[in-house]
Amino acid sequence: MPLWNIYYTADIFESTVTRTKLAEDITNLYTGGGMPAFYVVVQFIPLPAENVFVAGKARTNFVRLVIQHMAVHKHEGVDNFPARFSTKINDALRPYIADKGYDWEITVSDTPRDFWRFNGIEPPPYGSEAMKVWAKEDKASEWA
Amino acid sequence: MPLWNIYYTADIFESTVTRTKLAEDITNLYTGGGMPAFYVVVQFIPLPAENVFVAGKARTNFVRLVIQHMAVHKHEGVDNFPARFSTKINDALRPYIADKGYDWEITVSDTPRDFWRFNGIEPPPYGSEAMKVWAKEDKASEWA
Amino acid sequence: MPLWNIYYTADIFESTVTRTKLAEDITNLYTGGGMPAFYVVVQFIPLPAENVFVAGKARTNFVRLVIQHMAVHKHEGVDNFPARFSTKINDALRPYIADKGYDWEITVSDTPRDFWRFNGIEPPPYGSEAMKVWAKEDKASEWA
Repeated sequence: MPLWNIYYTADIFESTVTRTKLAEDITNLYTGGGMPAFYVVVQFIPLPAENVFVAGKARTNFVRLVIQHMAVHKHEGVDNFPARFSTKINDALRPYIADKGYDWEITVSDTPRDFWRFNGIEPPPYGSEAMKVWAKEDKASEWA
Repeated sequence: MPLWNIYYTADIFESTVTRTKLAEDITNLYTGGGMPAFYVVVQFIPLPAENVFVAGKARTNFVRLVIQHMAVHKHEGVDNFPARFSTKINDALRPYIADKGYDWEITVSDTPRDFWRFNGIEPPPYGSEAMKVWAKEDKASEWA
Repeated sequence: MPLWNIYYTADIFESTVTRTKLAEDITNLYTGGGMPAFYVVVQFIPLPAENVFVAGKARTNFVRLVIQHMAVHKHEGVDNFPARFSTKINDALRPYIADKGYDWEITVSDTPRDFWRFNGIEPPPYGSEAMKVWAKEDKASEWA
């Protein structure tokens, strides 16, 4: 977590360079606060051209981003966090989606932490020393 | 939102005409109440024939519908809304799924509104004048 | 429900025998308690090799498991249910993922029961006589 499933059609993200740069920019949205980079998974999910319908019409210039966040902390004390973070998301996506003329929709759901595992290991508490080790080594390891 | 991800195998929805008509009928489930039609996204997600297992057995005559709704309003005052809306869903799907002899399962999750954006714009409140403009123009636009 | 969406790249699960055995083992995680086997749907979702990014880097030896459970009962009285069930999940996946050297991440979300239907029929209460009939016959049928 976070998981970004990016549904697209046809040739929107056919460039490996584009996909890589967008995945890097999405990852950078999260790692500034100390989150291990490998928590961020971006999956580009290609669909056939006439398999995506918006308003009942087939669309090939539309991108649907379906995000799952972990319900880690509530960002208490951060004024209007969703609006602020959405602005960062918009900035990250702009060169790849808005500036290309594609329409897009994004939603973010929260997932409970209960069953979350990397390689079978329960992640350490957010902000803990163990998480910092995971971030530094960029991999999961036994920690308790 | 709503987002309908329809997972299917093999040739179940290989007809573009069928996909288009089903997407139209799904869209009509929502727009009667004034929701902008472009809120409704239907994605037909094809999977290889032996990649879908029900009860541990590969199935090619099975459709899994995974829906996300927006937690917009609670339909307070509408008696037994889920059962009523499920009946409408059943009626919409019948010609395309039940009448063809396919088995199917459907689930609907609610997604929080916090990070929901169209082309980077936060949607107007449900039922507002701005939403009516979006519905009429069938596109997102700055509204506040 | 449960629904297991298993995202993988390249040749990780290219063997039908492997997919079938893993789907059987996942199904067995749930049916011991009397759940109808056909409630368990496992979808193997193949993605192109350079469409999955972890930490901003394309990965071909990574598996992302995205699970949806039904919010059926709360396992009250079962001490530390998530940890116990996660251990069972780890054991089930080990031969297919960990022992093969793949990295993996798993998350589980709960879905409300409201709109859940099989072939348009609302499932009977968990543990009811009607559910036992469904389990025995391994199919949905009218029950009320």
